[in-house]
Amino acid sequence: MRNSSRSEVDPFIVMDVMEAARQAEEAGRHIIHMEVGQPGTPAPHGAREALAKAMATDAMGYTVALGLPQLRARIAKLYGEWYDVDLSPERVVITPGSSGAFILAFTALFDTGARVGIGAPGYPSYRQILKSLALTPVDIETAAENRLQPVPGDLEGLNLDGLMVASPANPTGTMLDRASLSALMQAAAAQGASFISDEIYHGIEYEAKAVTALEISDDAYVINSFSKYFSMTGWRVGWMVVPEDHVRVVERLAQNLFICPPHASQLAALAAMDCGDELQANMDVYTANRALMLEGLPKAGFDRIAPPDGAFYVYVDVSDLTEDSRAFAAEILEKAGVAVTPGLDFDPKRGAGTLRFSYARSTADIEEGLARLKTFMDARS
Amino acid sequence: MRNSSRSEVDPFIVMDVMEAARQAEEAGRHIIHMEVGQPGTPAPHGAREALAKAMATDAMGYTVALGLPQLRARIAKLYGEWYDVDLSPERVVITPGSSGAFILAFTALFDTGARVGIGAPGYPSYRQILKSLALTPVDIETAAENRLQPVPGDLEGLNLDGLMVASPANPTGTMLDRASLSALMQAAAAQGASFISDEIYHGIEYEAKAVTALEISDDAYVINSFSKYFSMTGWRVGWMVVPEDHVRVVERLAQNLFICPPHASQLAALAAMDCGDELQANMDVYTANRALMLEGLPKAGFDRIAPPDGAFYVYVDVSDLTEDSRAFAAEILEKAGVAVTPGLDFDPKRGAGTLRFSYARSTADIEEGLARLKTFMDARS
Repeated sequence: MRNSSRSEVDPFIVMDVMEAARQAEEAGRHIIHMEVGQPGTPAPHGAREALAKAMATDAMGYTVALGLPQLRARIAKLYGEWYDVDLSPERVVITPGSSGAFILAFTALFDTGARVGIGAPGYPSYRQILKSLALTPVDIETAAENRLQPVPGDLEGLNLDGLMVASPANPTGTMLDRASLSALMQAAAAQGASFISDEIYHGIEYEAKAVTALEISDDAYVINSFSKYFSMTGWRVGWMVVPEDHVRVVERLAQNLFICPPHASQLAALAAMDCGDELQANMDVYTANRALMLEGLPKAGFDRIAPPDGAFYVYVDVSDLTEDSRAFAAEILEKAGVAVTPGLDFDPKRGAGTLRFSYARSTADIEEGLARLKTFMDARS
Repeated sequence: MRNSSRSEVDPFIVMDVMEAARQAEEAGRHIIHMEVGQPGTPAPHGAREALAKAMATDAMGYTVALGLPQLRARIAKLYGEWYDVDLSPERVVITPGSSGAFILAFTALFDTGARVGIGAPGYPSYRQILKSLALTPVDIETAAENRLQPVPGDLEGLNLDGLMVASPANPTGTMLDRASLSALMQAAAAQGASFISDEIYHGIEYEAKAVTALEISDDAYVINSFSKYFSMTGWRVGWMVVPEDHVRVVERLAQNLFICPPHASQLAALAAMDCGDELQANMDVYTANRALMLEGLPKAGFDRIAPPDGAFYVYVDVSDLTEDSRAFAAEILEKAGVAVTPGLDFDPKRGAGTLRFSYARSTADIEEGLARLKTFMDARS
């Protein structure tokens, strides 16, 4: 048996870092993990308690494909609370993580070969999922002066069938304000490109609220998840909001592709939405960590930083320090005992000159990591 | 925004039955559910207990994409226990249900337009998932004298890139014995078609053990799940065994398409594998139900039955009673208060003359359902 050509997706380079970190730990070294893309905290206590209770009384078989009605309703309500947007629960689709939402969105919208614009740097799996569905990812090289986000001018002549944006973005944390997002949505519509807004880091924002595409237009697919703000990565539950006349198509796809999202995770997610205090405590940690990072990284010599509006990442231009971010990350791990992510996963072209630092873990870890980075860089210069 | 043409998948006809049943119950009627495709039992007690314990101490973030190593190892051991097959844990991939395994298998093996043979009648989502991935489902009309399973002669001239079989099958419950399965695998290989064996109903078998494709050759994708025998449908956790030289490709796809299967479900599944007594108790119920069905259905006049080797379904040829199984199912629901599935979802061409009866629920329900069916049919004749 041969593998298909659509299955030839790129390996994650960060996996090498993680494997090297694992080996170092196995050999007895203490490693600070600034490479991780997930909270160190578990699902909120109330979420786990609700599931434990449900397991005693509920058979928890398949749910309907679009997800538990009460969870869809609660998410619709969240759009009122967070954005003052009036959203019908009918348009909310519960998905197996944002990953499942990407698969549903791309399948619902695009036929073989369709050209879908994605920002570089950006979340690596956009590109690989598109490839594996026989679609064509079109890298949009973003500019530092545009906060490493696409702008309407970048779309000229690309002849896109779709445009995917993320705000706050991974790996940069930069956000699109209302005017920028609106301009992008108009530019996409002008060339007939369907608009997909990845809002998975909403809620993890610091100086300004993130803007949802739904504040601007209903003619968009909006993807979110319980993984980040709600601290539930391993539970694989997210959601998508689609235009009203797309619900039936997405429902049929979801029935066939996934049957339903995990029932247990849906019950836990519903309860998580009422765990505000615990989620705020997580945010307090991120806020403290971010302040430490923005002070400590420049002191260590990492001072070319993308505007860190949201999420829990700092993306640093290190092209003045190295031409090989992979080797540089390996050196940092070896000499400083800090695992960081080379930019190549996010930006195949320019990522050899960038690193992503995550501050999703404990404040003590961040303090220790920053101290180690400073010592390392001082010794290096 | 327009929807893609690949997203034009067929609706499930059984959904109309389920909605009509729901409305009848809302109106105060008591309905016996013989349309369901899942156990009425929850995950084994030990599985839920293990998860409750883990939730207290484990953050349960992402697992690695291929799944928890201890679960992969335990599944490999199962192949020794069930089939006397020596399987390396390295070849076991944990998936988000068998649904996730289908997506991974089809993506790993087939490029746009590839022709994949599926038996008719068969599980409806094979066809729809293939379509949504821009692949070409090729219906193989099976014959009653071949137990409604494909035979090598059926493949002649089909020019297949892949062949998907299921034993025990849904909707029929019929199995392929070792000789039949082996002959099909050879015939597929002879035309260069990759072989995928859906073994999701393994363990739910009555008079003979089901044969895994791995007893015959390692050159196959084998898909299974915790949904049926382990009674964990809503948990969305399954597995796939792939040839050794396909593991890396499938791992990269899984990383990007799903990140990982639900962590909580993996922990529960691991514990479920050691809940033999409870699973045997479920099997005792299915065995009793099956005996009742095989006695009661013919007495009611449903006597053209496919050999019910495994699973919890009886597939009945009712073409002597109706030319419209959808209307007939509606009539049975209306007059007998029993929900059954018209065959059209499983066999677009011949399903107008067939019904699927599920006996996955309690024995008391089966007894009541059969009594109602007999009264209904007696009054009809």
